[in-house]
Amino acid sequence: MKKTSFQHMPCPVAQALEVIGDSWNVLILREAFYGASRFDDFVQALGIPTNTLTRRLKDLVAGGLLERQAYSEKPTRYEYLLSAKARELRSLMLVLLQWGNRHGNVDVAQTILVDSLTGEPADLVLVDRVTGLPVSSRHRVLRPSRDSTPARSFAFPEPETALS
Amino acid sequence: MKKTSFQHMPCPVAQALEVIGDSWNVLILREAFYGASRFDDFVQALGIPTNTLTRRLKDLVAGGLLERQAYSEKPTRYEYLLSAKARELRSLMLVLLQWGNRHGNVDVAQTILVDSLTGEPADLVLVDRVTGLPVSSRHRVLRPSRDSTPARSFAFPEPETALS
Repeated sequence: MKKTSFQHMPCPVAQALEVIGDSWNVLILREAFYGASRFDDFVQALGIPTNTLTRRLKDLVAGGLLERQAYSEKPTRYEYLLSAKARELRSLMLVLLQWGNRHGNVDVAQTILVDSLTGEPADLVLVDRVTGLPVSSRHRVLRPSRDSTPARSFAFPEPETALS
Repeated sequence: MKKTSFQHMPCPVAQALEVIGDSWNVLILREAFYGASRFDDFVQALGIPTNTLTRRLKDLVAGGLLERQAYSEKPTRYEYLLSAKARELRSLMLVLLQWGNRHGNVDVAQTILVDSLTGEPADLVLVDRVTGLPVSSRHRVLRPSRDSTPARSFAFPEPETALS
């Protein structure tokens, strides 16, 4: 079954999903953030079928998210390390983590993010680097239209809670 | 083809993906953030096959991300509105947007986020709400293990750039 390609959609959200839009891919990257790098690490952590893992690792290397490096010779064995652009997905992982904690399956134990110095749970919020202000309705997305008419401006609606 | 379920993995990232891990679902939600609510809005904006859209809207309603409301009677027609928990995915959309702008297909026009008062592009960064400090290696994820042994602590590696 050929996957739909989102590569040519004039939208960076679609383009990001083209590379990371598969749930297994996101979980493999999550494990890499936790320090996994070898095939067996991923199998053990995720319970992922080995043929699925082989295919996904190949895709992630082709997409420039993982870098394959030999860690032994005779026999040659490879490990998979996060690339610079994959490391920039750290915010995505943390945003998913917070949302999942709030809205995921409550029967499953929570995984929390804490400040290791204070021991306090961290509550992460997205702010404008320059103003330090949380994202608000002041922030508007300028999205080019498909047919080269002038860009239109769209506001993301005001969040229900300050967290969003 | 039955989709793998991530619902019982003891990790909030996996649980978030259980609900939103399909690329079409994320794009449908993106359009809802832009103001789309009706079936035809989504078809027109996304070029999504109608049978795929029907299935995905049903999934998103079942998952509590969209709320189906009648907007006309005779004939009864429905629109799909973002739920409160879907609106909390706003940070996810914006993180995907920024990452896609930096690492997506450069041949496709960019979509940028601007401050509508100043006209300046917004550069969003994830900070701790209490301390105001960017996420750093001080932030550690406490992940419960599968077999009820004590929780282990994992550090997300230091980002390559201040942006992550």
